[in-house]
Amino acid sequence: MQQEGWKSGEGILQKIAPLKKEFMENAQKRLDDLTKPVGSLGRLEEFARRLVAITEETMPVPGRKIIFTFAGDHGVVAEGVSAYPKEVTPEMVFNFLHGGAAINVLARHAGAEVLVVDIGVDYTFEETPGLVIRKVMPGTRNMLKEPAMTRKEAEESLNVGIELASLYAEKGYRLFGTGDMGIGNTTPSSAIAAVLTGKPVAQVTGRGTGITDASLARKVAVIEESIRLHKPRPDDPLDVLAKVGGTEIGGIAGLILGAAAARVPVVIDGLISTAGALIAYALEPNTKEYMFAAHKSVEIGHKVMLDRMGLTPILDLDLRLGEGTGAALAMLLIEGGLKIYREMATFSEAGVSGEIEVP
Amino acid sequence: MQQEGWKSGEGILQKIAPLKKEFMENAQKRLDDLTKPVGSLGRLEEFARRLVAITEETMPVPGRKIIFTFAGDHGVVAEGVSAYPKEVTPEMVFNFLHGGAAINVLARHAGAEVLVVDIGVDYTFEETPGLVIRKVMPGTRNMLKEPAMTRKEAEESLNVGIELASLYAEKGYRLFGTGDMGIGNTTPSSAIAAVLTGKPVAQVTGRGTGITDASLARKVAVIEESIRLHKPRPDDPLDVLAKVGGTEIGGIAGLILGAAAARVPVVIDGLISTAGALIAYALEPNTKEYMFAAHKSVEIGHKVMLDRMGLTPILDLDLRLGEGTGAALAMLLIEGGLKIYREMATFSEAGVSGEIEVP
Repeated sequence: MQQEGWKSGEGILQKIAPLKKEFMENAQKRLDDLTKPVGSLGRLEEFARRLVAITEETMPVPGRKIIFTFAGDHGVVAEGVSAYPKEVTPEMVFNFLHGGAAINVLARHAGAEVLVVDIGVDYTFEETPGLVIRKVMPGTRNMLKEPAMTRKEAEESLNVGIELASLYAEKGYRLFGTGDMGIGNTTPSSAIAAVLTGKPVAQVTGRGTGITDASLARKVAVIEESIRLHKPRPDDPLDVLAKVGGTEIGGIAGLILGAAAARVPVVIDGLISTAGALIAYALEPNTKEYMFAAHKSVEIGHKVMLDRMGLTPILDLDLRLGEGTGAALAMLLIEGGLKIYREMATFSEAGVSGEIEVP
Repeated sequence: MQQEGWKSGEGILQKIAPLKKEFMENAQKRLDDLTKPVGSLGRLEEFARRLVAITEETMPVPGRKIIFTFAGDHGVVAEGVSAYPKEVTPEMVFNFLHGGAAINVLARHAGAEVLVVDIGVDYTFEETPGLVIRKVMPGTRNMLKEPAMTRKEAEESLNVGIELASLYAEKGYRLFGTGDMGIGNTTPSSAIAAVLTGKPVAQVTGRGTGITDASLARKVAVIEESIRLHKPRPDDPLDVLAKVGGTEIGGIAGLILGAAAARVPVVIDGLISTAGALIAYALEPNTKEYMFAAHKSVEIGHKVMLDRMGLTPILDLDLRLGEGTGAALAMLLIEGGLKIYREMATFSEAGVSGEIEVP
């Protein structure tokens, strides 16, 4: 894998260590002493174990949560791959900033903040609270005609995420979530899925915001032709990100790398976020241990990528919106697991009798 | 179906009406005008539609939530069907009242109250805040030897739930959850599942709190023999509840009947709660429209009963604890759906462009 010129990202991969079994085991010991049959809280127990091992704290404290919604435009929209015009990307950014979008509602519900990152929108925003302007480019190039980004632009998009992760870890945030906004961005996400999993494009490409059969066929053809044209190299994730990816996908990948390096757990949203996660995973497989897969999207490429990483989604609610909406909901369940670990009484504390038979 | 002697429950079934399509349709119209692709929030939209239709309010308000944890003992525990001694039932009731159990932690997390109902524990409790004493009997009889309850006792257990539902609906609670505590209570639950779905006992019987292979075989044999002995009639849900059920299962069934009659949505927890739900459904199929299936339990009989009612579980987190723990978590998602409905901006409010193509 080539990393020349990857400036502030350089060295980050070496900081991403596998989780230590001893933290998992100690956490499970406490879980097994709580007033419930061993293992009976299933995945809530898994969440608690992993939070202990990620933070390397005996008793992690629930704290501030934030969802980073990376927004970018896509030149490939010119090919008719989306049901919405590209103007919707900046319009939705304003909707986020006014608090009226689904991610605002669900983040409020989950007690999480939302930070919108303009990493590549084709619109010039004013400085606004809740918005970070770190524009790599005003929308990617049309990948059917030329690579979506240069390698340098792809590296820059990664760096935006890495730096934000580092900054918000320093600020004391305890749980990150990923999100996306970008008309057309299921197209690069499915392209990344196809290249990095080796599956045929048609098996990882869905209807996005809800396109017709004809548009879906066109979308598959556009992705196939773009891959044929640029030949992204599956063993070089930055090459894939540059040629058939997007700035917001790069930002998400970088955020995950930065989160893992800073030992902050990160909740991965749907298709677009998982394309970013797969880039991060391809760069450094240990990142997987810091990820929580929020949900199983309706988009068919999503499950394929989760399977490749060995991640099991927490929710399955037929969501297909993105923005970080699934991540916000999943945060509530992860935090539930942490509270179980922290707040339940042990058998001895509660004076409850143990098992008669131990299986 | 015989209902002689079913005193305060008499007439309740007539009050349980099917939901009106017009409320669903009007709710979906609003959902489709919110700033997201049509249908992209999947089951969250379903939750909102159903809350509108259940309450028959154009804009339902989130409000107080309560989980009723019905506790009862089971004579069949003498047959070695549980990994825990029956003393654990009252011990866990004290744990609930001290706030140290899983249901306390998760209900606090979900912003819900917990009311523990002693409907059949073999222990004499003092009056305590958070506990309602409505004991039908001090534990059921051993169903391997004689019917678990008389028909009159089964009716009384239903009435306890019906009356609590009515009382808490009047107090203004907006969302109910069901829960259970009772060492041995997966045995009557699986028995009910077998009788009311017609499946072989072995296909609806699991390990409960975690019994060995030998104990599981014994548990299946005990259920089979109890059914052979008492011949509960599948077309008479009260007969089934009486002969092979339990007081807490009757209480849960009654709570669901009362909730549906009062138009309060009710979140059904795992195996035991769903056995209660199936009794309620068998008495009046319209009850199903007022139920939300919280999760898919590890217990194999659970999914069989949900399928029989046509309910799709909200969560699948490998839980097998009961108490109402799954219901508490699911409440958070149902409320998320309601907030989406209430709080998101419409396309016109937010100035966001609509679709180019309408599929």
